[in-house]
Amino acid sequence: MSNAKLLPLIEPSDGQAAVTPCCPPLTERPFSAEEAEVAARMFKALGDPVRLRLFSAVASHEGGEACVCDISDVGVSQPTVSHHLKKLKEAGLLSSERRGTWVYYRVEPSVLAAMGKLLTGVPAVV
Amino acid sequence: MSNAKLLPLIEPSDGQAAVTPCCPPLTERPFSAEEAEVAARMFKALGDPVRLRLFSAVASHEGGEACVCDISDVGVSQPTVSHHLKKLKEAGLLSSERRGTWVYYRVEPSVLAAMGKLLTGVPAVV
Repeated sequence: MSNAKLLPLIEPSDGQAAVTPCCPPLTERPFSAEEAEVAARMFKALGDPVRLRLFSAVASHEGGEACVCDISDVGVSQPTVSHHLKKLKEAGLLSSERRGTWVYYRVEPSVLAAMGKLLTGVPAVV
Repeated sequence: MSNAKLLPLIEPSDGQAAVTPCCPPLTERPFSAEEAEVAARMFKALGDPVRLRLFSAVASHEGGEACVCDISDVGVSQPTVSHHLKKLKEAGLLSSERRGTWVYYRVEPSVLAAMGKLLTGVPAVV
């Protein structure tokens, strides 16, 4: 199965990700195997404490973006930080952009909103 | 570390779970190690496709509750279903009650609301 099939992301040319939510609210009807595959991938990405700390560090950083240099204060090595950021990116939760020496990571608010709606059934304004 | 420390649940005597949300919205500030531990546990529980299908089967079942007999249509054995339901219960996402032969599982809407708020920063009405 290709990444393109798993990820609910389309990256237009301006670098902003447009997200098609994968799934209905959990309370609406039982998920199909394919829907569960996509959604579980996103939840799994947040299911590791170090990854979640890094994600909240990016999400709460000034301007909603951060480079590895900003967020390495979680007690793991920089290669480990980079590994976790890559996983979050693969799950569609972060996008990244290289500027000079550093890669900057940015949270995808539309993905968070879609996950929130999946959990609560209520669309969030982000 | 005890389960009681990890789980943000208090079970009052009437069997309804009262939930103290563990964490601020992801965008508010970087999570502490302890907050990340609690929240990652809940996300991890939803990070498996079969578990997520079972969870949505319970969540969308009539009356918001279901027994194993209602939701075994996900292509895995009943012991596997029971194993996954136990994991969801341990993460505080389901509560259970035995009635006669069957154990009935019920989604904790307040936990879903707390997770939704954590993701989006917006409290949900459930």
